[in-house]
Amino acid sequence: MKAVVLVSGGLDSATTLAVAVHEGYDCHALSFRYGQRHDAELEASRAVCGMLGVREHRIMTIDLGSFGGSALTDHAIDVPREPTQGIPVTYVPARNTIFLSFALGLAEVLNARHIFIGVNAVDYSGYPDCRPEYIQAFERMAQLATRAGVEGATCRIHTPLINLGKAEIIRMGTRLGVDYAQTVSCYLANSEGYACGSCEACRIRRKGFADAGIIDPTRYLN
Amino acid sequence: MKAVVLVSGGLDSATTLAVAVHEGYDCHALSFRYGQRHDAELEASRAVCGMLGVREHRIMTIDLGSFGGSALTDHAIDVPREPTQGIPVTYVPARNTIFLSFALGLAEVLNARHIFIGVNAVDYSGYPDCRPEYIQAFERMAQLATRAGVEGATCRIHTPLINLGKAEIIRMGTRLGVDYAQTVSCYLANSEGYACGSCEACRIRRKGFADAGIIDPTRYLN
Repeated sequence: MKAVVLVSGGLDSATTLAVAVHEGYDCHALSFRYGQRHDAELEASRAVCGMLGVREHRIMTIDLGSFGGSALTDHAIDVPREPTQGIPVTYVPARNTIFLSFALGLAEVLNARHIFIGVNAVDYSGYPDCRPEYIQAFERMAQLATRAGVEGATCRIHTPLINLGKAEIIRMGTRLGVDYAQTVSCYLANSEGYACGSCEACRIRRKGFADAGIIDPTRYLN
Repeated sequence: MKAVVLVSGGLDSATTLAVAVHEGYDCHALSFRYGQRHDAELEASRAVCGMLGVREHRIMTIDLGSFGGSALTDHAIDVPREPTQGIPVTYVPARNTIFLSFALGLAEVLNARHIFIGVNAVDYSGYPDCRPEYIQAFERMAQLATRAGVEGATCRIHTPLINLGKAEIIRMGTRLGVDYAQTVSCYLANSEGYACGSCEACRIRRKGFADAGIIDPTRYLN
């Protein structure tokens, strides 16, 4: 069975792809150049797709940066070094909705009925578009949006990580053979893929490996 | 009040923008270069925005053409000259979902609570993503997707044309001062904006003007 898998190059999406491959899906990976601060993420997405084995890997360019409004795409907003309350400034408006919409279009063209996305409601609960109720609403909308839906087929959005903590994700991915050295989580990674070691994404990642009792292979600057 | 208005350069979206302007919204127009067969549509979107008056007009480039699967973006598929049964081959997979997702992101950045889209369930009932139930499902999803939604604000998707026939749309737009000579509906328009006169979009447009009893200002090749 064909599946479209959203792959960012981070720890979560690499694990999600490993789950989809393990479950026997014929995986069509989709990544985005969306105005993120660095290309290390996209390099990681290529490495992850090569490592886990996909049918094809498409990288689409979309200019979310021109919208502004997020520290991840607007270089005028600083990525915070300390944890914040509420929805973080690293939230990119409607990002998952935009990514899932492209995945839906690609799924329809490929005649695929499965989309995988590595959202996670536990460690990033500040992002509204990582919650189960959001995913369910997207699935319902997708059913009405597409030719396949009108003809009675359902398109399922798979979120294998949604209720897992970071340590559980890392344990699962390690069992499935993910080499996390290939992945980049850091919001501020440099061009060689070295992580800053102190932004919120690095902090959560470090703690995840520590909690899982697995050696963290990430190359940190400090 | 701010609104994001999706403007394609066609008859329907021009009328929708006229409605939004008439209702007093501060309009931020959004158009897409998405791999359509010709640029006449985008030229028309600029003309329409200039004619009706918008706060700003953004044109985003997204490569839907690389997905294939539609006669509008895949040059290997012919645009039919005759009406077809069911969902037409000119349907672009998930197009309105992708467009509305970008509109949602822009609305969130602008702190706008209103999105206008010129979908119409009457003359194009073959497109699944032009139906009221689809729009409602998108609205519900949007409520869960965004920071504004989480904080209790609602984002409304306005579809002023959804239940109107083409003649009614043309009459309404004419009352609101739309110069339809500036708009392009034809799937096969040439680089000067001349319409083919025979594709399904031209056929529906011609019949609309005839039924409305309004002189059709479209420049047809034949």
